[in-house]
Amino acid sequence: MAKTTLTISSKNYSSWSLRGWLLTKFSGLEFEEVVTAPDDASARAEILLLSSSILVPCLRHEGATVWDTLAIAEYLNEIKPDAGLVPTDRIQRAHCWSICGEIHSGFTTLRASLPVNLKGHFPGFKIWSRAQADIDRVCTIWRECLAESGGPFLFGERTMADAMYAPVVTRFMTYDVKLEPKLAAYANTIMAMPEMQEWIEAAKAEPADIEELEVEY
Amino acid sequence: MAKTTLTISSKNYSSWSLRGWLLTKFSGLEFEEVVTAPDDASARAEILLLSSSILVPCLRHEGATVWDTLAIAEYLNEIKPDAGLVPTDRIQRAHCWSICGEIHSGFTTLRASLPVNLKGHFPGFKIWSRAQADIDRVCTIWRECLAESGGPFLFGERTMADAMYAPVVTRFMTYDVKLEPKLAAYANTIMAMPEMQEWIEAAKAEPADIEELEVEY
Repeated sequence: MAKTTLTISSKNYSSWSLRGWLLTKFSGLEFEEVVTAPDDASARAEILLLSSSILVPCLRHEGATVWDTLAIAEYLNEIKPDAGLVPTDRIQRAHCWSICGEIHSGFTTLRASLPVNLKGHFPGFKIWSRAQADIDRVCTIWRECLAESGGPFLFGERTMADAMYAPVVTRFMTYDVKLEPKLAAYANTIMAMPEMQEWIEAAKAEPADIEELEVEY
Repeated sequence: MAKTTLTISSKNYSSWSLRGWLLTKFSGLEFEEVVTAPDDASARAEILLLSSSILVPCLRHEGATVWDTLAIAEYLNEIKPDAGLVPTDRIQRAHCWSICGEIHSGFTTLRASLPVNLKGHFPGFKIWSRAQADIDRVCTIWRECLAESGGPFLFGERTMADAMYAPVVTRFMTYDVKLEPKLAAYANTIMAMPEMQEWIEAAKAEPADIEELEVEY
C-alpha cells in the first residue's frame, strides 16, 4: 500500500495548504507531508492569486487523489466519520456546509488585500472599504455560530468549519483587525490549538524566498 | 411542515442559481422556486461580481437553510443518497468532489470575462489569454473524466459534477468557444438535458433589466 501523503506549499503564505493540513490533522488520518518546491508553478500561482484553480493541497490516500480543500473535507468525513468534521445535528450540519462553501468560493477582496502571512504583523493596517465588507461578513458568520453553539468552536465542538476559517483568523491577527470580545475569544481558541501552533512554528522557520518570486502573466 | 423552497436569482445571468437548481432537480426533491427581486442586493452583487460571498441560491428544507451550491450538493446527497449525486466508487467520488471544489473556488478570470448570459451569442468572441488558461484547464478536467468514464456524463452517470460545470458549458456556447469532438459531445449532452432546456426557456423569457443595474462600490 502506498503511503498516505498531503502535498502542501508554503506554510507562511498558503491559506489553502493550512486548511487542508488542519482538516487532515483533525481527521486523525496519519499522513506524510510533501512540500512543493518554491518554484512549483501551481503553488506559486495560488500564492500570487494567479491560478485558474487550486491544485494544492492534495491528499493521496489508498488510490484516491483529492486536490481541493472542501473535497478533502468531504473525503475525510467519509473515511473518518467519527472524527466530528461535521456537526451531528442535520440542521447544524447544513449550516456548517454553508459557511464552509461561502468561505471557499467568496471573499476575494479579503484574500487579495489581506494575504496570509504568518510571519508578518502590521499594527494599524489600513483596510480598504471592500475588504471591510468581507471582514464584516466573516464577523456576522462567526457571531451567529457562536451565539447558537455557545462556543468555544463555531459549532461547539471542532468541525471542518474551524479549519476553513483558520486562515481568516491569522489574517485578522496579521493585519491587526479589531474584534469584539466573543469573536476575539474564538480567534484565540483557534490560535491556541496545538495543530495551529505546530503550523505557525514551521511557518516561522520557513526561508523567506516567496517575496522574490516574480509575477508572470 | 413548511414548504421546501429554493431561492434563485436571474435564470439568464446567475451561474450559481443554475447550479443549485440543477442539483435540486437531479436529487428528485420536490421544491418551489422563489425568485429574488431584480433589485435584491445579494443577487445583484453576485451577478455584478461584487459580493463578499454568495448567499443565493438558498435551499430551505425541514428547518435547514443551505446557501451555497456545494453545501446544497452535500445536503441533498445526504437526504437523497439514491439520487446518484456522487459516484458510487470511492476513488471516483474523490475525483468528483475535487473537480467540484475546483470549479467552486477557482476560475475567476473565466467568471469575470465570460459571464453567463443565456440569451447572448457572440460568434468569434475574442478570448483574453488568462481566460484561455481557464478554458484549457476545464477542457483538461473534462477530457480526463470522459476518458476514464466513457461518458456521456463526466462520471458516466449524471452526478453533481455535471451541475457544477453546466454554467461553463453555457459560457462555451455563448462565447463560441471551440471544443474538440468529445468535449463538444459532452457539452451537447448537458445542453440537451430536459432540466437544462427548461431552465434556458425560462431564461429567455426573463425581462432584460439586469443590464441597467448600476455598479455600486
